[in-house]
Amino acid sequence: MPSPSTPPLYEQVAAELEKLIATGVLRPGDRMPSVRRICSQHRISLTTAVQAYRSLENRGLVEARPKSGFFVQVRTRRLASEPLVSTPGTTAISVDVGSLQSRIFDAARMPEIVPFGAAYPGAENLPVAKLSRIMAAMARDAGARGVNYDMPPGSEKLRREIARRSPDRGLSLSPDEIITTCGGTEALVLCLRAVAKAGDVVAVESPTYFGVLQMIEEMGLKALEIPMHPQHGMNLDALERALRGRRVAACLAVLNFSNPLGSLMPDENKQHLVKILAKRDVPLIEDDINGGLYHRGERPHTAKAFDKKGQVMLCGSFSKTLAPGYRVGWVAPGRYYEKVKALKLTSTLATASLPQLAIAEFMANGSYDHHLRGLRSRFAEQIRQVSEAVIHAFPSGIKLTRPSGGFVLWIELPKKVSALKLHEHALAEKISIAPGPMFSASRGFRNFIRINCGHPWSKRMEQAIAVLGQLIK
Amino acid sequence: MPSPSTPPLYEQVAAELEKLIATGVLRPGDRMPSVRRICSQHRISLTTAVQAYRSLENRGLVEARPKSGFFVQVRTRRLASEPLVSTPGTTAISVDVGSLQSRIFDAARMPEIVPFGAAYPGAENLPVAKLSRIMAAMARDAGARGVNYDMPPGSEKLRREIARRSPDRGLSLSPDEIITTCGGTEALVLCLRAVAKAGDVVAVESPTYFGVLQMIEEMGLKALEIPMHPQHGMNLDALERALRGRRVAACLAVLNFSNPLGSLMPDENKQHLVKILAKRDVPLIEDDINGGLYHRGERPHTAKAFDKKGQVMLCGSFSKTLAPGYRVGWVAPGRYYEKVKALKLTSTLATASLPQLAIAEFMANGSYDHHLRGLRSRFAEQIRQVSEAVIHAFPSGIKLTRPSGGFVLWIELPKKVSALKLHEHALAEKISIAPGPMFSASRGFRNFIRINCGHPWSKRMEQAIAVLGQLIK
Repeated sequence: MPSPSTPPLYEQVAAELEKLIATGVLRPGDRMPSVRRICSQHRISLTTAVQAYRSLENRGLVEARPKSGFFVQVRTRRLASEPLVSTPGTTAISVDVGSLQSRIFDAARMPEIVPFGAAYPGAENLPVAKLSRIMAAMARDAGARGVNYDMPPGSEKLRREIARRSPDRGLSLSPDEIITTCGGTEALVLCLRAVAKAGDVVAVESPTYFGVLQMIEEMGLKALEIPMHPQHGMNLDALERALRGRRVAACLAVLNFSNPLGSLMPDENKQHLVKILAKRDVPLIEDDINGGLYHRGERPHTAKAFDKKGQVMLCGSFSKTLAPGYRVGWVAPGRYYEKVKALKLTSTLATASLPQLAIAEFMANGSYDHHLRGLRSRFAEQIRQVSEAVIHAFPSGIKLTRPSGGFVLWIELPKKVSALKLHEHALAEKISIAPGPMFSASRGFRNFIRINCGHPWSKRMEQAIAVLGQLIK
Repeated sequence: MPSPSTPPLYEQVAAELEKLIATGVLRPGDRMPSVRRICSQHRISLTTAVQAYRSLENRGLVEARPKSGFFVQVRTRRLASEPLVSTPGTTAISVDVGSLQSRIFDAARMPEIVPFGAAYPGAENLPVAKLSRIMAAMARDAGARGVNYDMPPGSEKLRREIARRSPDRGLSLSPDEIITTCGGTEALVLCLRAVAKAGDVVAVESPTYFGVLQMIEEMGLKALEIPMHPQHGMNLDALERALRGRRVAACLAVLNFSNPLGSLMPDENKQHLVKILAKRDVPLIEDDINGGLYHRGERPHTAKAFDKKGQVMLCGSFSKTLAPGYRVGWVAPGRYYEKVKALKLTSTLATASLPQLAIAEFMANGSYDHHLRGLRSRFAEQIRQVSEAVIHAFPSGIKLTRPSGGFVLWIELPKKVSALKLHEHALAEKISIAPGPMFSASRGFRNFIRINCGHPWSKRMEQAIAVLGQLIK
């Protein structure tokens, strides 16, 4: 069983600060030492000090007050623990996720079913009217451009808008490095196809998004599951051990607010990850689909920010933030650019023209960044609301994540509960959930479930959580 | 060298009729015997008699005059011969089409280049204004439906409109048998992935669309090239021989107006093809992308009309007829429905919602069928215009197809001409063409080119054809 990695520096500082709270030196409502003070006390950088506080904040121990600093958290609600560090098997195995995925997505088509299953944002959280007005204007004004092929690399205007925001990700992309795709799904498939062929091994997070496992299965690849820390993501010691003496064709990971854990890999771990992989010439497929959905602070950087060899293939999408049905994603494939562009031609030939133009215009006129600001706080609030309802309705002893970004919750149920059976019973009650074994090639996490919090909280959802609680008991 | 198949009954009748013209019994402008008379003379069905005349018509020997019957063709222009029956090698080989495809598609992005390369319809031939108005209305009215995922099988309204027109294809599809896709390209890929895995052999037409060869290469499959008759398509005797003692995972073909030949497989050959494949349990991927683009008469039927075992996967698209940039295609995968639907989830998850809704509405209000009627005669006319210019400007001794549908021409140049070199020189003159070796896994057809006739004829094109003629000479 792999041991967790050595905690990074900021976690050591966080642990020191935590002691102040645990021992009662600082009480609820007390002001924490200032960030500058921590810097000089521990001889660390400002960034590291801020990271230390963010870690405490993520764990609900302190809260930030605008222009006043950090304070010991006052609310003394019953805090459920976080799920344990995940410990999948370390051998590569063939994936068989089965037909569960189809059932989850079929449920998402049915308005009568409570949508805790598939991870997608509710339309109530999306700027439907504004975006649709722009789409209508584009359709009228674009003329032949809207009807003609927009051959790869795709809309230049959209690629420019994406590139313009890349400094938020800690790097500086040029539009020429980007290829637009039919959603983030196609971006991931193109990357996998560019670097892996049937029989190859791909290192993935465990738990990971079931769609990735399904892709891996259908391409005849093998998933090598790397254990995760619920806050910091992939265990890099475990990854290094797994890479030793084994050819791995690629590593695919969601470093910013992973799915389903919601973990956020610290920047120094990202840098280390890139180094580990570069040493062995293993490409990293970085799925940054949730990076813009941080609940507090600033946008986390990407591993590609530390990429010196063009080995990181950065993937993004507008499906989780703006318009799932527009099917627009993108990839900056580094040195695999030509290969990915060629594969795009034989995958879907081109991405739909008008959806790209509409999104580009929505970004160019400032609407996108404005929308994201609101969306982030709505998702944070929805996560809080679902968490509280779960803590209230589910038996004590459950554990749930406290993600600092994204919109899904990962819940560990009592050992005796089968998530697969719970999924069946919940569906009979018109509630869709995603059972844990879907998120693992080895069918682990049998007593875990993922809950989608992408929809506004409602009485109906509260009742659904209560019903789930009853079913579990 | 494979021999051509025994001519079908209607061809035997056509040969008899042709003798009347060749021997001067009937002269240019003379009326041919009526269809009913042929029926009683030869004791054949009305359908067969009509097919016999269609064959003569396709070869430019007779012409139909409304309500008057068939007449010996009057125009006595210099008729170029049709290319010979194609004779690729009969062994399965690995495909390597190289980067030619990217260059052809890159050229299609550049308005300064004469677009004889990629096969796509010019926007001047498409109902841009009308479709865009419908798209704008849809964007305004669809609300959340336009922004949300439209999970597979995709838009019900669109599937209903496609199913409603399936009797024109000689069969009766239900909307539940159809899955919408990101263009015809994705439909083909999903079908191939559903039935073939790396190392498998796929039987294809020779020559065939280079995109298919590229797909086959990238999936690690092997192409088995079956020779073609320029009018009747795949040589079924050759196919039967090729299938003997060899496991073939699928057969992929464009039976109605193949690309690049423009050949049309007669219905009785389609029936025979389905039988040959059924006997060996080989699925047929039928790409009916051009079926609606017949220049005369009625829509040809599909092989799926003869499919009793669900082994034919019928693919369609709106890219050649309505809106390439909308990226909407579809597939009726027969007994592979569940597999294809699952693969769609991990390929692009869903097809863009609004483009599907707009096309469905364009079909429902009658605009699509109206548009197709005009498009068919425009394509027929454009083919005629390009053909005449080619016959005029190219050296004598060349051969060109006389397609009865679609919008591409396939031209055999003098033996000493290298199509690949011609492609280079033409591109330097800002003219894009598709060189023959792209259409063959064995890089055959070295002195052939394909010319796209999807754009309205213009002075600029006339000059481009003249330049090509000079380059060839």
